[in-house]
Amino acid sequence: MWADLRPIGRDKDTGGYRRLAWTGADTDCRAWFRTQAEARGLAYEVDRNGNQWAWLGDPDAGDAVVTGSHLDSVPDGGAFDGPLGVVSSFAALDELRGRGAQPSRPLAIVNFGDEEGARFGLACVGSRLTAGRLSIEAAHALRDAEGLSLAQAMERAGYDPEAIGPDPDRLARIGAFVELHVEQGRALDLSDHAVGIASAIWPHGRWRFDFHGEANHAGTTRIEDRRDPMLTYANTVLAARKKARLAGALATFGKVSVEPNGVNAIPSLVRGWLDSRAADQQTLDLVVAEIEKAAVERGERDGIDVRITRESFTPVIEFEHALRDELARILGEGGGSVPVLGTGAGHDAGILSGAVPTAMLFVRNPTGVSHSPAETASEDDCLAGVTALADVLEGLACR
Amino acid sequence: MWADLRPIGRDKDTGGYRRLAWTGADTDCRAWFRTQAEARGLAYEVDRNGNQWAWLGDPDAGDAVVTGSHLDSVPDGGAFDGPLGVVSSFAALDELRGRGAQPSRPLAIVNFGDEEGARFGLACVGSRLTAGRLSIEAAHALRDAEGLSLAQAMERAGYDPEAIGPDPDRLARIGAFVELHVEQGRALDLSDHAVGIASAIWPHGRWRFDFHGEANHAGTTRIEDRRDPMLTYANTVLAARKKARLAGALATFGKVSVEPNGVNAIPSLVRGWLDSRAADQQTLDLVVAEIEKAAVERGERDGIDVRITRESFTPVIEFEHALRDELARILGEGGGSVPVLGTGAGHDAGILSGAVPTAMLFVRNPTGVSHSPAETASEDDCLAGVTALADVLEGLACR
Repeated sequence: MWADLRPIGRDKDTGGYRRLAWTGADTDCRAWFRTQAEARGLAYEVDRNGNQWAWLGDPDAGDAVVTGSHLDSVPDGGAFDGPLGVVSSFAALDELRGRGAQPSRPLAIVNFGDEEGARFGLACVGSRLTAGRLSIEAAHALRDAEGLSLAQAMERAGYDPEAIGPDPDRLARIGAFVELHVEQGRALDLSDHAVGIASAIWPHGRWRFDFHGEANHAGTTRIEDRRDPMLTYANTVLAARKKARLAGALATFGKVSVEPNGVNAIPSLVRGWLDSRAADQQTLDLVVAEIEKAAVERGERDGIDVRITRESFTPVIEFEHALRDELARILGEGGGSVPVLGTGAGHDAGILSGAVPTAMLFVRNPTGVSHSPAETASEDDCLAGVTALADVLEGLACR
Repeated sequence: MWADLRPIGRDKDTGGYRRLAWTGADTDCRAWFRTQAEARGLAYEVDRNGNQWAWLGDPDAGDAVVTGSHLDSVPDGGAFDGPLGVVSSFAALDELRGRGAQPSRPLAIVNFGDEEGARFGLACVGSRLTAGRLSIEAAHALRDAEGLSLAQAMERAGYDPEAIGPDPDRLARIGAFVELHVEQGRALDLSDHAVGIASAIWPHGRWRFDFHGEANHAGTTRIEDRRDPMLTYANTVLAARKKARLAGALATFGKVSVEPNGVNAIPSLVRGWLDSRAADQQTLDLVVAEIEKAAVERGERDGIDVRITRESFTPVIEFEHALRDELARILGEGGGSVPVLGTGAGHDAGILSGAVPTAMLFVRNPTGVSHSPAETASEDDCLAGVTALADVLEGLACR
């Protein structure tokens, strides 16, 4: 099953994956999903937002137990972020059947479209649309780097962009959604566990910092006559790291754009994007306020006008305690304890958590590396993940 | 004359000029040059490298006095960098004729092609080719951002790219080349002079700093597990400014590229270009060595592999002392002293200085701003520049 998926959308040079939403590589991944569903005799369907579903039992019976994740990737992403959850879902279903378990509730496996948001700049488009967390107008306004709209991209991939929108009837069928995902940090590695349960997704947001200076000749403008926004940007990058470290939070400048971006030109504008996250809202607010203050203060020194725009924000998401505790009970039946951990990453499970009871399982990532070709998980840990997911599905749906 | 040239290639939004080599705007500027030449009864010709010439007197007589500059611009450049020298050349010739001066040597006005290098990444292509300072093979290998070759661009503009190459016979006709240019710093403004004479072009170079880290998820990777090259880059930007300031040199990071450049991704690679210049070689070597040291030391702290490549370098260019002193004598005849100043910017005059006696006149720039729509010079100072250039042409060619 892994073997068929592995080569799709893989870059020969980097070894990373480029399975961007509604591209050829994504289409190939989706064909793989359908083949897996049909090979198991599951009822295959695509919902109005392009998410794929594979059903065991009658969807209309309600109170379904759903598992799954996504198959798309960031540019040069790893093999596990997303696909591990989908592959493990099919493998857990195989294990359930091998155990002879008889589900008393409908079961489904889902592949949410465009989770990473790498193409259109907004994450979790498939689950957002379904949950009514993204308006049809806003979705139609999304454009990729080539200027192609989401609607055009969906149409080229063979889907009807006019059909997209909220899907409350579909959500009403779901009694529980459990997403398995490779961990994107090292908490499980540090506590020596193969599998963990998510407690919450940290509040997180993106802020755009525009540093406006004055374009000038790099070879002739005296130091004292310069208004160079690159200096203010550089100082803000270092301040962000320091403030986050002191507060136990995260702050990253991973994207920057410069105008005119010429070797011999002092920039007129440096634009940097801050990604910041913390375990709680208060800490996050404090860290971002301190970074903003550092930027503005240094800007005054450098003669730079600093403008800051919050581009997106997601408050803390606490997964439903009852379902989380049920998972802990099921996985604890063997005698061991299962760690419960927070995460800084957004997921489809986070989007759905406002609409249906939702939980997540994490599989150990020995290096913590994600969104990179170097992302990895051991075979033993992946199999432990499948067993845990099978236990959860059996515990929730077969008793 | 200015009025006809002013609207060509001007961006409506920024007010800056986009007269990139061999584009439509450049073609329009070149048509303007030809019109000006023919309106004055000058013999118009284009040399094998696309540089335009307008002759008064017999070119083959030898020992010609040539003046001129360039008409192309950087993206969003100012109105004066280049065109002031060409416009002043025609105006100075008009003034000479008004004075009834009789040239005993041939006079010529030149517009060198592609001085800024904004399209193909290499400055002074027209004068370099003519002076044999750029090989035909290297010129044919130049590509613009769209992948179009210099040869294709020349062909589309109606020129024969197969004809390009060194032009020693043409250079042998020239007894002196004097380029008038708007100053790109504030030395004249600070010393309260309208016009100055160039002493030398500072040694300068470009260095590419590649900061190799590890791509990772910005939302889940612990601070202590990160290898974030943006931090090392930021620290190097600040170190460059500090080291340059202490040494009285210039150091600028004006161009940066980031991979994968995603808001939620710690970069795998940050590439920054350093432009550095100083009045002498020893100071420049020292400053660059200190910046390199700071980058490598911080890289060790951040777990970043730093690789540094010198992409280009131009040693100090001293303009010919005899011609410079002759200009100082001519311009000093009115009784005032004319300041002699160095500059950090490269010019066609610098390229030609190895082959023919060359000098430069600078016109005051009250803000020092250049390579920007805000570049300016007062009308009085521009007229003082024309008078000075006419004095120089008369002094050199009419006695």
